[in-house]
Amino acid sequence: MRTLVTGGAGCIGSDLAAALLSQGHEVLVVDNLSSGKLDHIEPLLGLPKFRFMGGDLEDGSMLDSAMAGIDMVWHFAANPDVKFVEGEPTDKDLRQNTICTYNVLEAMRKHGVKQLAFSSTSAVYGVSPVQPIPESAFFPRPISLYGATKLACEGMISAFGNLFGMRCWIFRFVNIVGPKVRKKGRTVVGDFIARLQQNPGSLLILGDGQQAKSYLLTEECVAAMLFAVEHANESLNVFNLGCDDWLQVTSIADLVVRAMGLSGVSYEFTGGEGGWPGDVPRFRLDVGAINRLGWRAKLNSEQAVEQAVQSTLRMMQASR
Amino acid sequence: MRTLVTGGAGCIGSDLAAALLSQGHEVLVVDNLSSGKLDHIEPLLGLPKFRFMGGDLEDGSMLDSAMAGIDMVWHFAANPDVKFVEGEPTDKDLRQNTICTYNVLEAMRKHGVKQLAFSSTSAVYGVSPVQPIPESAFFPRPISLYGATKLACEGMISAFGNLFGMRCWIFRFVNIVGPKVRKKGRTVVGDFIARLQQNPGSLLILGDGQQAKSYLLTEECVAAMLFAVEHANESLNVFNLGCDDWLQVTSIADLVVRAMGLSGVSYEFTGGEGGWPGDVPRFRLDVGAINRLGWRAKLNSEQAVEQAVQSTLRMMQASR
Repeated sequence: MRTLVTGGAGCIGSDLAAALLSQGHEVLVVDNLSSGKLDHIEPLLGLPKFRFMGGDLEDGSMLDSAMAGIDMVWHFAANPDVKFVEGEPTDKDLRQNTICTYNVLEAMRKHGVKQLAFSSTSAVYGVSPVQPIPESAFFPRPISLYGATKLACEGMISAFGNLFGMRCWIFRFVNIVGPKVRKKGRTVVGDFIARLQQNPGSLLILGDGQQAKSYLLTEECVAAMLFAVEHANESLNVFNLGCDDWLQVTSIADLVVRAMGLSGVSYEFTGGEGGWPGDVPRFRLDVGAINRLGWRAKLNSEQAVEQAVQSTLRMMQASR
Repeated sequence: MRTLVTGGAGCIGSDLAAALLSQGHEVLVVDNLSSGKLDHIEPLLGLPKFRFMGGDLEDGSMLDSAMAGIDMVWHFAANPDVKFVEGEPTDKDLRQNTICTYNVLEAMRKHGVKQLAFSSTSAVYGVSPVQPIPESAFFPRPISLYGATKLACEGMISAFGNLFGMRCWIFRFVNIVGPKVRKKGRTVVGDFIARLQQNPGSLLILGDGQQAKSYLLTEECVAAMLFAVEHANESLNVFNLGCDDWLQVTSIADLVVRAMGLSGVSYEFTGGEGGWPGDVPRFRLDVGAINRLGWRAKLNSEQAVEQAVQSTLRMMQASR
């Protein structure tokens, strides 16, 4: 199969690209390298079935050449920062998530590409009246621009799929962790390590530390998606991807402190229920649908975070 | 209160503008007159508390001057055509619904405007697993670009409301009927009348005629919204607006035929369950929430359509 992976130089996209290649597929990665890195796809650059194209999906026309001859799109390009920071433009998520996804769908329509897998997010749900959250129990009320604009993408995928006969898979991720996921300010594991390296005596924790979320390793996330695309064949297939449990932020701090061989670290809290405006402080996803399909996470949230901490520390040591 | 009504020269917006004026509010209408008409607001043009500003919301900067000093926005500007017509650009709804709504929200944020009422649509739900459809029973799967892009608006309203402390009212309309709602190809009442005037012996009906939907008169729709804004005070208030029952398309044809004094009209059907790609063939909305708040439609679907047929015929006769 000839596949296009947008955002394929990103943390998840690059692992996905490698997995698709190992299954024998052709892979074209499109990435503007705004948050993706060439480092992530360096091991793939020489492979005969791999191509890389630099370019920004906001420019719909560049998709015309990328989309020609493609059988299936894995659309993973997005603004990866869930946090909205006061003072930043409010249209970043609209442009990088919603409009870019429209551009991908429109290019697919023009070129007759009929299959799409999409990386959505648990943030589409907003604050849920039920825990764990099933895929279709209530009308979502996103509280972040990130969640709102990903919901917009889901809606357009649903409509394009119906109008133009596309088969689509939408994956709503819990927090994905792994050694590549450590851009400053974006992820709790990378942040805690960086802060403790700066100041091993004290750790600043956003919110009250009682936030509890589910975590999944990048490699498990990729395995789940490949499984779902192979086994789920509705016109629109929507799956929560995660594990059964959740983990408190203070427990993550404990894991990082232990892995770094520190002790006596004092935790400081910024206070408040959520870590930042738009943060959903407590959630876990009902993963019954993907379980019933036949896939189940091997690691629980604690094990996933523990592995991510270890591999992140190893990778940081190696890159010194 | 100083109110801004976007799309205020439209079928619903102009009735709303008149109602707000009669309640003593100041009203600024912004409309690009792409589907709205100056005719609709002509009776308001001389009133001291009324102002009209021509302009397109896709140009976010024009909102800067419109938004200054406003207390509450009624955002009704939108692409009013639910149907996607093959060959037309697929980004019309994205631009006119989603991006314009973002522009409105961003201008509100900049100017500290804290209240928004928004005209959404039953089309956000897509094909529902339950009838009648409550506001929050399942995760929506829109099947039209119109429904998808209105869902995108709802998501952004939810997020902006949370991040920037706005109070918002979202109204999901059933089919709104009235004498102004008769743009060619957009509404069943106006279409049937126009076709029967051309050919009184035969009527072409889209789909199999078994489509069944709920109908509400423009004036009832406006009354419901004013009531809800006065009485519902959550940070985000979402209401289905409609009546309890539904009406088959062939029954509407019967009503029009009778009102026009015709007989022996043969019905022809284009066939298929829906009238067009993206048409949700059968739906009615659960209006329990607005009923419990204290508002209930006076007319059922049949009575609403009957009144709309009568008033449309009168208006067409008057404008000859």
